[in-house]
Amino acid sequence: MKCEVVAVGTELLLGQIVDTNSSWIGEQLALVGIDSHHQTKVGDNHDRMVAVLELGLSRSDAVIVCGGLGPTQDDITREAIADVMGVELVRDEAIVERIRAMFGSRGRDMPQNNLRQADIPVGATVNPAMPGTAPGLICPLLGDHDGKIIYAVPGVPWEMKQMMTEGILPDLQARAGITSVIKSRTLRTWGKSESGLAEELDDEINRLDESGEATIAFLASGWEGLKVRITAKADSEDEVEAALVAEEARVREIVGDIVFGVDDDTMESVLLQILRERGLTLGLAESLTGGLIGSRITGIPGCSDVFRGAIVPYDREFKVKLLGTPDVPAVSEEMAIAMVEGVCRTLNADCGIAVTGVAGPEPHEGNEPGTVWAAISIQGRTEAVLLNLPFDRERIRQFTCIAALNLLRTRLLAS
Amino acid sequence: MKCEVVAVGTELLLGQIVDTNSSWIGEQLALVGIDSHHQTKVGDNHDRMVAVLELGLSRSDAVIVCGGLGPTQDDITREAIADVMGVELVRDEAIVERIRAMFGSRGRDMPQNNLRQADIPVGATVNPAMPGTAPGLICPLLGDHDGKIIYAVPGVPWEMKQMMTEGILPDLQARAGITSVIKSRTLRTWGKSESGLAEELDDEINRLDESGEATIAFLASGWEGLKVRITAKADSEDEVEAALVAEEARVREIVGDIVFGVDDDTMESVLLQILRERGLTLGLAESLTGGLIGSRITGIPGCSDVFRGAIVPYDREFKVKLLGTPDVPAVSEEMAIAMVEGVCRTLNADCGIAVTGVAGPEPHEGNEPGTVWAAISIQGRTEAVLLNLPFDRERIRQFTCIAALNLLRTRLLAS
Repeated sequence: MKCEVVAVGTELLLGQIVDTNSSWIGEQLALVGIDSHHQTKVGDNHDRMVAVLELGLSRSDAVIVCGGLGPTQDDITREAIADVMGVELVRDEAIVERIRAMFGSRGRDMPQNNLRQADIPVGATVNPAMPGTAPGLICPLLGDHDGKIIYAVPGVPWEMKQMMTEGILPDLQARAGITSVIKSRTLRTWGKSESGLAEELDDEINRLDESGEATIAFLASGWEGLKVRITAKADSEDEVEAALVAEEARVREIVGDIVFGVDDDTMESVLLQILRERGLTLGLAESLTGGLIGSRITGIPGCSDVFRGAIVPYDREFKVKLLGTPDVPAVSEEMAIAMVEGVCRTLNADCGIAVTGVAGPEPHEGNEPGTVWAAISIQGRTEAVLLNLPFDRERIRQFTCIAALNLLRTRLLAS
Repeated sequence: MKCEVVAVGTELLLGQIVDTNSSWIGEQLALVGIDSHHQTKVGDNHDRMVAVLELGLSRSDAVIVCGGLGPTQDDITREAIADVMGVELVRDEAIVERIRAMFGSRGRDMPQNNLRQADIPVGATVNPAMPGTAPGLICPLLGDHDGKIIYAVPGVPWEMKQMMTEGILPDLQARAGITSVIKSRTLRTWGKSESGLAEELDDEINRLDESGEATIAFLASGWEGLKVRITAKADSEDEVEAALVAEEARVREIVGDIVFGVDDDTMESVLLQILRERGLTLGLAESLTGGLIGSRITGIPGCSDVFRGAIVPYDREFKVKLLGTPDVPAVSEEMAIAMVEGVCRTLNADCGIAVTGVAGPEPHEGNEPGTVWAAISIQGRTEAVLLNLPFDRERIRQFTCIAALNLLRTRLLAS
C-alpha cells in the first residue's frame, strides 16, 4: 500500500510558508505501516493540480491532498479532484447547514463564499471529522484508477491532523488489510550522541530484528536531545501496549537516566513535576542565558506552585548586590556556587540553578566562548559543573539552559 | 524559464526532518524572476530519483536537486544524475585534493568514503562555491533534454545557500536572459493586521501596478509582525538600489512608525540600537513572561553595554521584596508602574520594561487569561498600557514580550 502526499498552495512554492503538513503526514503514514514514496508541492493552478493528482494515482494506491479547501476563489482542490474523478461537484445541503451553524455559534452570519466549501464531487463522502468549516473529502476512483482513492484535507494543521487521525489513517489501514495495531512511544533522552546511544542499544536492536517484538528508531532533536522511538505491532491494543511497556523498560535498563521523559514531556515539565512531588521550590540566577531558563519554566501552565522567580544579574554589579556574591572571577566555579546559594537565599527557594559563562562571539576576561559554569543547589547542598560548548551564541545559550535543567533533574533523582 | 526543486532523502518523507531547503530555494527563485511550479520530495532510491528527475526535465527547463551528495552509500544523487545524463561518473582528482586539504586543515585524515564525493558525471562541472566537502554539480543535458540543466546541491543548508547564491541563481538568470538586476528589501512592521496594512497601501500598490517601479508583497510572521517586501527590477545595481530607497521612503511615509526595522533587524536588536545611540541602559521586570524578554535581549551579541539585567518576581512576595511594589492588585496599572519604577531603581537603569498579567489557561484573581499590563520607563517618565490578548498561553507570553519591546521603542522615538 503506497500513499503519496500533495501539498497545494502557491505560497508553499514561494517559500512564504514552510510545508510542515506533509512531514507530519509522512510520519503518521510510516507509523501505521503505509509507504509514502513521493511528496509534492504544487501551486493553486487547476491544470497542474490535475496533472499531479493523475501522476500520484499512477504510481501510488492513495493520494492525500492537503490545502485548497477554503472558501476563496484560489481554493480549487474540490474542482481539481472532481475533474480527476470525471464527475460534477454538487452542493451538499447538510454540509451547508453545518457550516452555517458554525458561524451562528460564533454569532456571525455565513458569508456567501463559504457555500463553495459544501461543494462535493459526486461519489465522494465527507471525512467524519470536521473541526472547521472545510469538510475533508474521501474520493474513491473508478475507471483507469479503479480501487484507488484521494483524500482531501484542509491546510490548517489542527483540522488536517484530526481528519488524518480519525478518518484517513484507519481507512488506509483497512484498505491495506492491516488489522494489527501499531503504536509508538518516544523516550526523550539527553546527554548522549546518536552514535553513542546506537552503540549501547546495538545488541537490543539486533535482538528485536530477530524477535520482531518492536522496532527502535533514533530522531535527533538538536539541543533538545535525541528521541528514541519504540514502535510495536500486535493484534490488539492491550498486546501492543504490553509490548511497548516491556520494551521501554528494557531500553531504560540499558541506557539509564539519560531518559528524562516520554512523548510530550520536556526537560522543564519533567523537572517541575519532580520538584512538585517533593514539595520543593525553585529559584534561578541566569547570567549568559538572560532569562531563557525562566521563560521555559514559565511556559508550563501551573508552574507557580514550584517556581519562585529568577534573577538575571547581567551586569556584574548586581551579582554582588542581589545575590551577595564575593569578589571572584565572573566565570568560575566559585561564582556559580555563590550565585546559586545567593538566589536560594534571596528568593527563599529550596532548590536553585545558576549559570555564568561566555556566550560569545568574543572571549570575555580570558575565557573562550562556550566556557560555562552551571551550579545547582538542593536544600543547601551545592554542586557546579564546567561545560565546554564549542558552538555559536544561540546554541551555547540553549545547551547551557537544558544542561542546567538536566543537572538538577539527575541530582534530584539521585538524592 | 521554469525551474523545479527536488529534495532527496528518505528522512524527509518520514517526517524526521522538515524540508525547509525547498522553501528557501523557491523564495530565492521567485526573487530573481524564475518560476517554480513543482517541488518534490523523494527518498534515497535510485529508480525513483531517476524518474523524478526525468519528470522534472519534461516539464521544466531546470531542476535543482538538494541532498544525497554526502559520502555514505545512501548518497546516490551523483549516480542518479549520471544515469539521467546517460554518462559515467569519473573521479575528479582536483576535487579529491580539495577534500583532502579540508580534512587536513582540521588535522584529520580523509576517510576513504569521501572519495565518492569527487565522482563527477562526465560533462558536468563543479559549482564555484564549495564550502564543505560536497561539491555542487552543474549538469547540462543533451539528447531528449537538450539545453536543459540539473543543478545538485548538498542538503546542508549553509552549503546549499552559498552554492545557490554564487553559482546557481546567476547561471539561471543568464540562461533565462534576465539581464536586469532584481533586489528586495523587507520592512519589518508590528501592530497592524494584514488587511489593515493592505488597505493603507492600496493606492500605492495600484500606482506601482501601473508604473512598474517596484512590487509590494506581505508576509505574515505571527507574533513577530508582518513583513512588507519591496522588490525592484532595473538594469543596474545602482538603479535598483535607488528604486528600493525611494519605495521604502514612500511606504514608511504611508504606514508610519509601525515599521520597526529592515531585513534582518528584530524588535530587540532595533531597541538595543536606539538605547545604545542615546547612551541609555535597560532593566526588566518580568512576571508572566518569566524571562522571555531578557532571553531575547541577551540573544543579541554585545548587549551588555545596554542591558543591566532582569528580575522575574514570579512569586508575589518578591515583587515587594526586590522591586518595592505597594499593596495593589498583581495585575493592575499601579502594579506595572511600580514594577518598572522598582526595577529601574534596583538595577540602576535609565529605562525599564515591566509586564504583569495572566498567561492562562486559568483566570487569576478575577482576571481572564490575556489580561496584561505592560509598563515602560524612560528616565523617570513612566507609562502603562493594558493589552487584551485573546490567545493561548504561548501566544499571550510572546505577544506580551514583543508588545512591551515595541512600546519602549515607539516612546523612545517620540521622546
